[in-house]
Amino acid sequence: MSEIRFALAQIDTCVGDLDGNAEKVLDYARRAAREGARVAVFPEMTLTGYPIEDLALRRTFRKAAWDKANWLAVELEADGLGDLYVVVGTVGTDQANAKPRNRLVVLHDGVVWAGYDKHFLPNYGVFDEFRIFTPGESAMTLDVDGRRLGVAICEDIWQDGGPVSELAGLGIDALVTINGSPYEEGKTHVRRDIAAKRAAEVNAPILYVNQVGGQDDLVFDGGSFVLDRDGTLVERSPQFVEDLSLFDLADDGTARVSSIAPDLDPDEEVYRACVLGLRDYMAKNRFTGVCLGLSGGIDSALVAAMAADACGGENVWGISMPSMYSSDGSKDDAADLARNIGAHYDVQPIEPLFAAFQSQLDLHDVAAENLQARIRGVIVMAYSNSKGVLALATGNKSELACGYSTIYGDAVGGYAPIKDLLKTRVWELARWRNRHAEEETGQVPPIPVNSIVKPPSAELRPGQKDSDSLPEYALLDKVLAAYIEHAHGRADLLADGFDPDTVDTVMRLVDRAEWKRRQYPLGPKVTALAFGRDRRLPVTSAFRE
Amino acid sequence: MSEIRFALAQIDTCVGDLDGNAEKVLDYARRAAREGARVAVFPEMTLTGYPIEDLALRRTFRKAAWDKANWLAVELEADGLGDLYVVVGTVGTDQANAKPRNRLVVLHDGVVWAGYDKHFLPNYGVFDEFRIFTPGESAMTLDVDGRRLGVAICEDIWQDGGPVSELAGLGIDALVTINGSPYEEGKTHVRRDIAAKRAAEVNAPILYVNQVGGQDDLVFDGGSFVLDRDGTLVERSPQFVEDLSLFDLADDGTARVSSIAPDLDPDEEVYRACVLGLRDYMAKNRFTGVCLGLSGGIDSALVAAMAADACGGENVWGISMPSMYSSDGSKDDAADLARNIGAHYDVQPIEPLFAAFQSQLDLHDVAAENLQARIRGVIVMAYSNSKGVLALATGNKSELACGYSTIYGDAVGGYAPIKDLLKTRVWELARWRNRHAEEETGQVPPIPVNSIVKPPSAELRPGQKDSDSLPEYALLDKVLAAYIEHAHGRADLLADGFDPDTVDTVMRLVDRAEWKRRQYPLGPKVTALAFGRDRRLPVTSAFRE
Repeated sequence: MSEIRFALAQIDTCVGDLDGNAEKVLDYARRAAREGARVAVFPEMTLTGYPIEDLALRRTFRKAAWDKANWLAVELEADGLGDLYVVVGTVGTDQANAKPRNRLVVLHDGVVWAGYDKHFLPNYGVFDEFRIFTPGESAMTLDVDGRRLGVAICEDIWQDGGPVSELAGLGIDALVTINGSPYEEGKTHVRRDIAAKRAAEVNAPILYVNQVGGQDDLVFDGGSFVLDRDGTLVERSPQFVEDLSLFDLADDGTARVSSIAPDLDPDEEVYRACVLGLRDYMAKNRFTGVCLGLSGGIDSALVAAMAADACGGENVWGISMPSMYSSDGSKDDAADLARNIGAHYDVQPIEPLFAAFQSQLDLHDVAAENLQARIRGVIVMAYSNSKGVLALATGNKSELACGYSTIYGDAVGGYAPIKDLLKTRVWELARWRNRHAEEETGQVPPIPVNSIVKPPSAELRPGQKDSDSLPEYALLDKVLAAYIEHAHGRADLLADGFDPDTVDTVMRLVDRAEWKRRQYPLGPKVTALAFGRDRRLPVTSAFRE
Repeated sequence: MSEIRFALAQIDTCVGDLDGNAEKVLDYARRAAREGARVAVFPEMTLTGYPIEDLALRRTFRKAAWDKANWLAVELEADGLGDLYVVVGTVGTDQANAKPRNRLVVLHDGVVWAGYDKHFLPNYGVFDEFRIFTPGESAMTLDVDGRRLGVAICEDIWQDGGPVSELAGLGIDALVTINGSPYEEGKTHVRRDIAAKRAAEVNAPILYVNQVGGQDDLVFDGGSFVLDRDGTLVERSPQFVEDLSLFDLADDGTARVSSIAPDLDPDEEVYRACVLGLRDYMAKNRFTGVCLGLSGGIDSALVAAMAADACGGENVWGISMPSMYSSDGSKDDAADLARNIGAHYDVQPIEPLFAAFQSQLDLHDVAAENLQARIRGVIVMAYSNSKGVLALATGNKSELACGYSTIYGDAVGGYAPIKDLLKTRVWELARWRNRHAEEETGQVPPIPVNSIVKPPSAELRPGQKDSDSLPEYALLDKVLAAYIEHAHGRADLLADGFDPDTVDTVMRLVDRAEWKRRQYPLGPKVTALAFGRDRRLPVTSAFRE
């Protein structure tokens, strides 16, 4: 038996783009062959893109995907790559009930050579696969140059039993897994732990090839890797970029250490996830520019910096929309930011518009505050419509969770890059981005220091501060993380050491905001990061703890 | 053996309102006992409300529901109703994995006496139950006065096999089913056919008790019924109202014919579904009034008439917001409508506001048309905020499907009563409502004839007509029904007899509108009727047929 070289093709696919995805497989398969690979492994649902939701239910789409897989096999052979084993994901059909399946196929010798259907279909958090697919029933192995390879798809390795346990019984020389595993902070280690468990179970190295790129409200970080049977990391691809890495399974069945991409700083990791999510959302929906309101505050400043990193400052339209309550400092900060990132910058005062509405409507209190925010929303959408650019909403997770925003106002937009970042994280990422500019790239730090250090304010009435309505963010974010992300109830929160007043305030704000958000969806449902879909609750519920 | 009397308690529950739902059970159980019933049957998930979505995952909620079931059993006995068998739905917990279950319990003798867990968990269309619940594994029977009753929960009778087939093997005297079956046009007969099949399978009468009322984006129509073993309808409760009906299982095991509510006229059925959906959405979310823009067109006229029927004309705020393109006829029609239904009526011209924006923004074409719609959206939300009333969006399914509306403009609102009605249906319901006023109630017909007969126009530019941008509605709606509701592809549509130009136009409009709607959700996600969740597709998809 000889050494076998695997290529881990960590590519960025687009849902529904069968032509583009197949062309990309062809390109990476050629590169893999040039590098001497015998097996080229692509991510889950390579040809169709992932997650495809109800598109899988469309018979015409499944037919087109099947035709494309066959076309690709023929094309590979025509290119002299018929010998290569190309492992790709696609959608299949269960012949018994005509329902879709999440399928892995091996292209070889000019044909679709073998197929395996995903067994465990995740049906929690951001996943709805059980709703769509019929589960597969049997494991599959693949003999390559006298070695027996087992295959599995993503969730198949996260559950005990099923195909991996069957493969362990059969005995295999390597476990090849194709994945569409969305980014979450800290998930790198979770993935590696579960993969190590399966490597031990099958007593063989495990290859983990992950998708990279933004798709709708998910970001896939790549970070593909190989572990030896004892769990040793022998290969790791970089995160957030397409990549082709190699891995050799030696004559004696051990893994040979290849390149290992370093871990990123946690702030850099999250920042890059946000930028990639936005960049891919724009590219896959054919937007070349964005517009957003620049208030001088930290949220819009961070979003603008991310946008400039995603599509270039020259494609960013920043709109300052001062009211009678906006401080000069805020206006200067907005202008400085726009200059730093090279964005277009317009000033559209809302005072005359506000006065026109008020002469008809005579609103007071919150209704008057919301009116200001909604006038700004109209202006942002006017830029979006007239320039054909994507409107960005700049809300962060803390304020959205507490309902500290105006529907059809500052919540207007098609994409919300920092919707999943708590406010304290927004500050951390802003500091990281400035530090990165200073230390790594020699750029001007994009975000004005004043936007970072001044007390947050919506500036909708004289002297207004966020802290008038909300607990201080350092405390608030801790409670939000416990209540929303870790689903702690009231008793748990008190046991966590939070004082009863704070707990009750935050629970009241969050429950009320959730209720209002479900009544009036907050504009962009698409978010950059899948830090979990925290809760999916009925609109109407009288339950209070 | 003696005759057994059943009470079919068709009640309107509220999700999460354990106290309110339990009080209502107590009330109906007392009435059932007064009527001599031995068994009182309530709808699916009576105590918790339905559908409860992720609320089921909350441990504290499940604990509270368990406590409430026990409280109710004790309370029933204290009331002298310990002898009654009270069949209610609630949420349970699977002890093995701590996951929730969709449970039926029997309250008797002061305790929670027996329990059955739903076996088939629907995971399609509007249902996500498999995501939330663990399926039950065994059937349950209940002996009452020497008769053996089998039980099942909703989907259990829609699938072959499972508990009903087990009960058929055991032999039962009646099959008691508790249901949360959302309203769809024509579903009455589908339900009766499936129930007849199960009655034949178990060779015994079947009781079908359904929930009534609006809950979030679903409307439950009630219409509970009993079929004899041969499928004969022996009892039917009215639709769209709470009801307590009785049914006697005779000594010889046959069903005795009781009251049979007549079928409604199809237009009346849909109209009542819309009104009930809105009324319950308001009540359960504690709104007492609504506001909406009145254009003089048919859509806002029908929505206003529905709103007046749901909450009284004196709680409806109609806002006429004429532009320079609004005809005098339209303004008169809006005023007439408001007078007919007894609504508040304000005129808020948008010309000065439009001029103020244009002096800063100088917009053209679609951007200028959208600006008018968005100014109206700001005004509607100003009324909503300052008067504390629910904003209603007036879009119909035809225009929403084709993207013929403005996000953050006419699509603004917390609830969209006619979002699931095609335009041709809107006209039919308007005509029915006027006829109903003339023939049944002696009211002034609410909807001005001119609003029904004039050609539809958005009035956003001079002389604009819907037919400039869309096929005639009579044709368009047929294509939409085939393409969206019946999921016909291009080839199917041509086989349906539609001409290729129309097919391509409609497919292009719908696909583009779906794409935009997923990018910028259209305001109200809550709708009155569940005519199916037509499609759930990715935001980004390059697939075109």
